[in-house]
Amino acid sequence: MAKAYDQLHEHFETISAYGHALSICGWDEQVNMPVKSHTQRAKSISKLQQARHMLMTDPRVKDWLDQASEEDLNLWQQANIREIKRVWQDATCLTPELIDAHIKATSNCQQAWKQMRGENNWKDFEPLLNEVIKVSKEEAKIRADIAGTSPYQALVNLYDPGQSIEQTTEVFKQLKSFLPNFIQTVTDKQSNESCIQPNGTFAVNDQKELCLELMKVFGFDFEHGRLDVSHHPFCGGVPSDVRITTRYKEEDFVESVMGVIHETGHACYEQGLPKEWNGQPVGKALGMSVHESQSLFFEMQVARNPSTLQYLAPIFKKYLGEGQKQDDFWAAENIVKLYSRVKPDFIRVSADEVTYPLHVILRFELEQEIIEGDLKTSDIPAAWDEKMQSYLGVDTKGNYKDGCMQDVHWPSGGFGYFPSYTLGAMTAAQLFHALKSEVPNIEQGLNQGRFEPVRAWLKEKIWSQASLKSKQQLLKDASGEPLNAKYFIEHLQHRYAH
Amino acid sequence: MAKAYDQLHEHFETISAYGHALSICGWDEQVNMPVKSHTQRAKSISKLQQARHMLMTDPRVKDWLDQASEEDLNLWQQANIREIKRVWQDATCLTPELIDAHIKATSNCQQAWKQMRGENNWKDFEPLLNEVIKVSKEEAKIRADIAGTSPYQALVNLYDPGQSIEQTTEVFKQLKSFLPNFIQTVTDKQSNESCIQPNGTFAVNDQKELCLELMKVFGFDFEHGRLDVSHHPFCGGVPSDVRITTRYKEEDFVESVMGVIHETGHACYEQGLPKEWNGQPVGKALGMSVHESQSLFFEMQVARNPSTLQYLAPIFKKYLGEGQKQDDFWAAENIVKLYSRVKPDFIRVSADEVTYPLHVILRFELEQEIIEGDLKTSDIPAAWDEKMQSYLGVDTKGNYKDGCMQDVHWPSGGFGYFPSYTLGAMTAAQLFHALKSEVPNIEQGLNQGRFEPVRAWLKEKIWSQASLKSKQQLLKDASGEPLNAKYFIEHLQHRYAH
Repeated sequence: MAKAYDQLHEHFETISAYGHALSICGWDEQVNMPVKSHTQRAKSISKLQQARHMLMTDPRVKDWLDQASEEDLNLWQQANIREIKRVWQDATCLTPELIDAHIKATSNCQQAWKQMRGENNWKDFEPLLNEVIKVSKEEAKIRADIAGTSPYQALVNLYDPGQSIEQTTEVFKQLKSFLPNFIQTVTDKQSNESCIQPNGTFAVNDQKELCLELMKVFGFDFEHGRLDVSHHPFCGGVPSDVRITTRYKEEDFVESVMGVIHETGHACYEQGLPKEWNGQPVGKALGMSVHESQSLFFEMQVARNPSTLQYLAPIFKKYLGEGQKQDDFWAAENIVKLYSRVKPDFIRVSADEVTYPLHVILRFELEQEIIEGDLKTSDIPAAWDEKMQSYLGVDTKGNYKDGCMQDVHWPSGGFGYFPSYTLGAMTAAQLFHALKSEVPNIEQGLNQGRFEPVRAWLKEKIWSQASLKSKQQLLKDASGEPLNAKYFIEHLQHRYAH
Repeated sequence: MAKAYDQLHEHFETISAYGHALSICGWDEQVNMPVKSHTQRAKSISKLQQARHMLMTDPRVKDWLDQASEEDLNLWQQANIREIKRVWQDATCLTPELIDAHIKATSNCQQAWKQMRGENNWKDFEPLLNEVIKVSKEEAKIRADIAGTSPYQALVNLYDPGQSIEQTTEVFKQLKSFLPNFIQTVTDKQSNESCIQPNGTFAVNDQKELCLELMKVFGFDFEHGRLDVSHHPFCGGVPSDVRITTRYKEEDFVESVMGVIHETGHACYEQGLPKEWNGQPVGKALGMSVHESQSLFFEMQVARNPSTLQYLAPIFKKYLGEGQKQDDFWAAENIVKLYSRVKPDFIRVSADEVTYPLHVILRFELEQEIIEGDLKTSDIPAAWDEKMQSYLGVDTKGNYKDGCMQDVHWPSGGFGYFPSYTLGAMTAAQLFHALKSEVPNIEQGLNQGRFEPVRAWLKEKIWSQASLKSKQQLLKDASGEPLNAKYFIEHLQHRYAH
């Protein structure tokens, strides 16, 4: 009997229970908690996180891992051990002092960011960000030494294990040489097209009912999750109880509705993980770029697909038609146009599918210079501006709040996270191409609302696999080839310059 | 420096963090959680409870307690040690086997109760309840041996520490000799009075707005709490973030509105505990009967007070007047009558203030016979019926669902809890009498909505004291005398037979 393995299994089941409570409390904090309850909540959560960290770094874990490597384990158990080892190493390699310094620096900088971004106050923000960068570089160095990678690679591995900088650089290079001209082509083309904008009042409750209906259409399991409102939309909770959120604006539904479909993609991945594996590391979703590939599969490949919008437009009208009575506005062709406008602009989170990758590539390049190169914190705004000018023709000089202060990622120390977004978009395109080659009539089905074959394929290829395979293997098994930019580029050409 | 004490302080701060997360998750379970998420949630919660139990029973706690008794502690620290000792003893005295048996028996019986109560199925319920009784008797015996009390007293101490069975028996005896005749007098009197019943549709959202307004009137702090909907109304969360719930029926607002004021009483006690004591045992609310005294103070002494209802009736009408347009219905005299109807009936939770104590006394007497006497589980229905006939003239033969199967307390092993309700009602009357003697014009203030002096007095006498004093001392300091039935009886006479 594999005794050490069983101990590890039980130990990580307990660790997972902490994760469960922390997730639900984290969701509650964003959705329900009164502001002034924050201090006490933060204190309690921090204590529980410490307790979980103690379990993770319990010296017995190393002994069990050593012993388990001699035990007779099946493939699933071996994969679980691999994942346990990875999260254990991530948790144990930093000294308590560095963890403390990290928490302090990021918490100060994030807190300040909330205020200073609105004030466009780079001057006071810079030293706080500099402190975060200092500890992040230390962290990267230590992790890199242990893993035998470069420092930035070590940070990327925290979010997207096994995604090599070399591959990312290569696929981003392909996008960089394609996108600028392509954006010009698309914006020229669109400048001759008219599109009716939303111009009405769309009651929040009607939008909510529509979102719930769409979640049903796309297969969200309401017996294991729910939809709520929060300031920043997210997908939280646990696989057995996935909590997605959105926010509503009475004057516009376009963003919130598509946002809900995006989060539904994340949610279906979580809900589609094998339930009986939920408590174990191998049962978790596989890294951030695969996660993002699922939300973008739902949003970009499926929901914004003109075939799907043919089916969805009348549903939109059914729920929101009272808010804007022009029939032309609700015509599928107009909805398609609404959901495919391209315009280079300042802000990543509201960027369209075509310009978005350049926002990410800019950050990916700057992060490498920050973590491994010579870029000083004080030089970030100029470097940011130079790249924005060059990639998107947008001027951010002196406009820090819409420039390098726009994201929460750096203030919170999340260096290495950004590439996942665009890797996810490419993965989604590659997977959708594979699905279409493998299952006949997928796109024809979309305009009749037949999403079940899409879900079934994703469930088989991605969701049910959890973290059983490496990311490379997963993508290879699902699509027949390693990650490349080809399908994403073809997808953009087809959708925007057809 | 009091080193062992500091260790204890820190240790219980950590234990409190577990309590925080468990409370929020518990609230979430009742308010938000999809039903099918239950299995995984229950598993996680049970693991965290085990982890908390491990901390509570950590052998170092005993050592620290021993050492701390030699240290130089101030009065607050001494009180904290007293409370730590109490909760530590409660947690450590049972064997893991008995704890397991208890969890198993109560979880089976509660689960079955949800189904079988509706089916009036005593036959299949009896053996499950018998199992709960068996383990509860074992538990009582062990606790009693350690504490040097009777077995039932040991169970009562879990909910209402320091409330002696002798005192409860004595005050209940006074009520028992007073109530049956008094009920007759009141029902005779009321049979000649007409009262207009609700007969309309009161939109749920209007009721909610009214409840929020009333919470504001009674001083609920929305920066540290909120109101939601759940199947069974309760007051949960943590003192820094108190979550109260209610449920709404479109055809009637009477119950939900008063229920919210009742829970607001519980909430104000929690919110009024000194914030800086929140993580320590001495900072917690003092036992269930004091807690119930605060909710009943708000509900029975203040809100149902005819002076207050003069003030509240127009507010009710403002929010709900559209639902029932008769002016007579909304007249203060009618609202007063609505909130003072007396009618002996089957169900404790919907009983009026006058008949309620007899429901409690019946359970108090039966619990003693069950835990310490010879009453067999199979004889409970007959014993129940006999007392219901004698105390309230109500026949429950064969009607188990409205008889001994009506409450969740016994299926969940909560023997010893029931007396708190009526002790709370008596305490509330005694406190209100003291307040009126001490602060002039309290009742006159009520019909102008001046609740602040009431809150200030309760805050000073009760809320700010947390668990610093014994219950007896607290009541003596606040009202000048030990608990007695006199003020409650006078209150009933004044309100119902005036």
